[in-house]
Amino acid sequence: MNRPEKPFRRKLDIKNGRVDLSHGAGGRAMAQLVADLFVAAFDNDMLSAGNDQAAFDVSEGRMVMTTDGYVVSPLFFPGGDIGSLSVHGTINDVAMAGARPLYLSASFIIEEGFALSDLSRIVGSMAAAARDARVKIVTGDTKVVERGKADGVFISTTGVGVVPEGLNLSADAARPGDKVLLSGTIGDHGIAVMSKRENLTFDTEILSDSAALHGLVAAMVAAGGPGLRLMRDPTRGGLAATLNEVAASSGVGFKLEEAAIPVRPQVHAACEFLGLDPLYVANEGKLVAVVAPDHAEAVLTAMRAHPLGLDAAPIGEVVADDNRFVQLTTAFGGGRIVDWLSGDQLPRIC
Amino acid sequence: MNRPEKPFRRKLDIKNGRVDLSHGAGGRAMAQLVADLFVAAFDNDMLSAGNDQAAFDVSEGRMVMTTDGYVVSPLFFPGGDIGSLSVHGTINDVAMAGARPLYLSASFIIEEGFALSDLSRIVGSMAAAARDARVKIVTGDTKVVERGKADGVFISTTGVGVVPEGLNLSADAARPGDKVLLSGTIGDHGIAVMSKRENLTFDTEILSDSAALHGLVAAMVAAGGPGLRLMRDPTRGGLAATLNEVAASSGVGFKLEEAAIPVRPQVHAACEFLGLDPLYVANEGKLVAVVAPDHAEAVLTAMRAHPLGLDAAPIGEVVADDNRFVQLTTAFGGGRIVDWLSGDQLPRIC
Repeated sequence: MNRPEKPFRRKLDIKNGRVDLSHGAGGRAMAQLVADLFVAAFDNDMLSAGNDQAAFDVSEGRMVMTTDGYVVSPLFFPGGDIGSLSVHGTINDVAMAGARPLYLSASFIIEEGFALSDLSRIVGSMAAAARDARVKIVTGDTKVVERGKADGVFISTTGVGVVPEGLNLSADAARPGDKVLLSGTIGDHGIAVMSKRENLTFDTEILSDSAALHGLVAAMVAAGGPGLRLMRDPTRGGLAATLNEVAASSGVGFKLEEAAIPVRPQVHAACEFLGLDPLYVANEGKLVAVVAPDHAEAVLTAMRAHPLGLDAAPIGEVVADDNRFVQLTTAFGGGRIVDWLSGDQLPRIC
Repeated sequence: MNRPEKPFRRKLDIKNGRVDLSHGAGGRAMAQLVADLFVAAFDNDMLSAGNDQAAFDVSEGRMVMTTDGYVVSPLFFPGGDIGSLSVHGTINDVAMAGARPLYLSASFIIEEGFALSDLSRIVGSMAAAARDARVKIVTGDTKVVERGKADGVFISTTGVGVVPEGLNLSADAARPGDKVLLSGTIGDHGIAVMSKRENLTFDTEILSDSAALHGLVAAMVAAGGPGLRLMRDPTRGGLAATLNEVAASSGVGFKLEEAAIPVRPQVHAACEFLGLDPLYVANEGKLVAVVAPDHAEAVLTAMRAHPLGLDAAPIGEVVADDNRFVQLTTAFGGGRIVDWLSGDQLPRIC
């Protein structure tokens, strides 16, 4: 693009500066923040063209669109921050349709007084996450609200992607007899955030599992084809909420084996300490798939061959159940119903 | 969709209820809020399918994607509210590429304690705006933060649309000699919000101009074809910010006639009273177009034939200027430079 020299008189003081209301007012200060921080970090032609929207070519086919707001507290936690989370989380929602993510948009709502150094770190983390995932952040927006009217920064990202021809995953597609596959350990993200929030220390630090899952998904689609019924990433509300939602949408129940669900020992210990059940704790780099029985083995093999699916496991199956219950057979042979989360167990976990 | 009966025991108390942290926690309360409020109001198959993403078919071609965060204060103002604004504003950013808007996503960040009746009113207003514009809100997200960590509700919407073949509007496309056309009066939205915020009353109430401009845009594209260089909606920072941005992107200057720029008398009076310059005040239902000279008349005629362009006017032209100045010839024959807004004249105007 034939962009002229920048019309800014002073360099943005990223080291010591703070966001003020002028950075959201549509004038020179906002233009400078966008140019020096966002456009510089996200670095792509569509963004630097300086339009209020990004334009891109598409082929005939099926697309998906998804959005998520990120309000995680604290903003920085072991294994990630709100920036990487806002990229991974939305990529994953695109990927759960079996789709290949293409482009992201980002809307920032920033509290007056927020340190530009923190904003720069978050934006850098978003840029790195997007680069690693080969997804471009092509358009965005910045608003600033008065001190005390937000909490640091909130980020809403939206993703679009393309669905491979013939694939049609949907929450209402689970059928009795289908197998349930989980891509790895649960609870890591929620416990990483909680431990930081509560100032807990463990012998081994628990890291968020925040990761972009579209590579794993592509491998599963290649292996499972039409045998893949649906995929979900169990974020807020954990595996329990996700499977209850699917049960309601598909009109089925689930029977899970507790012993088959991978949980790291230190996450298990932290959950006991905090009075939490790992089934309800958020994940940001895991998926659960419902697969037709004759395709389950092939999909599981493909998952275990991918770096983000090394601990993948079959954890149970779909059953006919007019009550749409998610049932768990415990390690001691008993059973219990895994209900929806009914309170606010872990606010602002993502 | 084959959705089973809802798994909620009590009806959502929209009249007296308030949003609490459980409405953002991923459990039953959130599922109920989504089903009874959002899905019911936005009412379309893609949303009610209950997936974390919306899927739709596209033809081969060029698409645009745009996002905006809305933090307007107060939430309700003469002529609109944050809900209608969040639909109109994002549709307009899609439309400024000459594109036909197709789908919107919506991310809500809500403060604990926010009245469900207000949320319902806002969501109803979004639904009505989307329906009137024939654009579907197909996916969304809800987060709740603790009391005092947000300000009622913030909404980020993202829009996608398709660009007519052969059309390529861009901020860097203005050329010396091009004409500048404005679709109507400026300053209405900003003054409507400010008057509510400052509790000002005028003889005639000033209403926000908030409106979806894609119909007007389609008429302009049909009339102007390749003669249309670019369009912009002068929101935050007003016409001054918009034209300074275009001047920087295209490497040109602008010469405007002050007397040609339509301003309602009561907006003019309010601006004098508040110490504001209408050139810097936000609009939410106006556009400015840069058009090749031999197409300007046809585009202007098309604008004036549309209900949202009745007051359309030619207000000046693009000039060669290495300084990229926006210059104004005043009604008294003098001249001044319309610089970027340098402070935070009107925070939270959109």
